Amino acid sequence: MSMSIRPAAAGDGAILHAMIHELARHHGAEEYFTAVPEDYERMLADPRGLGGALIALVDGVPAGCATWQRMFSTFRGRETTYLEDLSVLPQFRKQGVGQALLKSMARLALARGTTRLHWLMMAWNDDGRRFYTAAGAEVEDGNCYCTLEGAALERLAT
Amino acid sequence: MSMSIRPAAAGDGAILHAMIHELARHHGAEEYFTAVPEDYERMLADPRGLGGALIALVDGVPAGCATWQRMFSTFRGRETTYLEDLSVLPQFRKQGVGQALLKSMARLALARGTTRLHWLMMAWNDDGRRFYTAAGAEVEDGNCYCTLEGAALERLAT
Repeated sequence: MSMSIRPAAAGDGAILHAMIHELARHHGAEEYFTAVPEDYERMLADPRGLGGALIALVDGVPAGCATWQRMFSTFRGRETTYLEDLSVLPQFRKQGVGQALLKSMARLALARGTTRLHWLMMAWNDDGRRFYTAAGAEVEDGNCYCTLEGAALERLAT
Repeated sequence: MSMSIRPAAAGDGAILHAMIHELARHHGAEEYFTAVPEDYERMLADPRGLGGALIALVDGVPAGCATWQRMFSTFRGRETTYLEDLSVLPQFRKQGVGQALLKSMARLALARGTTRLHWLMMAWNDDGRRFYTAAGAEVEDGNCYCTLEGAALERLAT
């Protein structure tokens, strides 16, 4: 088995779409998944450069991806690297693909000149907790994710 | 009392610094606060436009601020507006400043063409929970905030 990781580029929208769709399914969040491949093409082509993605290949076949975004820590006063998604297709799990993607994300964060890679995880995700803790991450419980969306957002804006 | 809200601009770094420093104190996170006013000046001047801030004035005096960032929802396939900080100085609390800032953020999110404003909150923040729920937000518990920083990040990257 040979594994390699490369940055996503124009034309990779369909690959990212398949993988992030799988992640949404895995999280029981498919109803919230409305992206289409063209959305990722737009993201990858954004001239204002909000972020990007890495794609893992196993024997040349796309097996997983990581998507990331630029963020700014107002407490630290500097940019950070936010990991939005880490997805490995079911048939490629338990082969080190996730570990290789996380390691590549660590390298990417440092190469960007940031010293912090961060992400969110659902508290019920015991596999994720073991995986991330083993990689050296700190996992802080007790966070709430708040959203104002659609009609509620419009109501407040009025 | 007259209240107004304006976008932060070049020269507002010291105002933002004082307010976000106060927020860090309020959250018992002062040890993590290492930003200096110049960091915010750089953020505000960033030609790649990662985000910005709003400043609330009460009778012309800076009373609070909100900082926000562009994000991309990979599940929705579109940009969102992320609220990083909402801070009101102690002497200006309970006067509707936070409510006015959140309302202005809702307007800003819509004006940016996004339909989602989102943020994180500590689960212990009962005042915040009441405030945000009353404003129409959904507050989802059970999230973990994960970080790889400094030596741990470098170790994984090696």
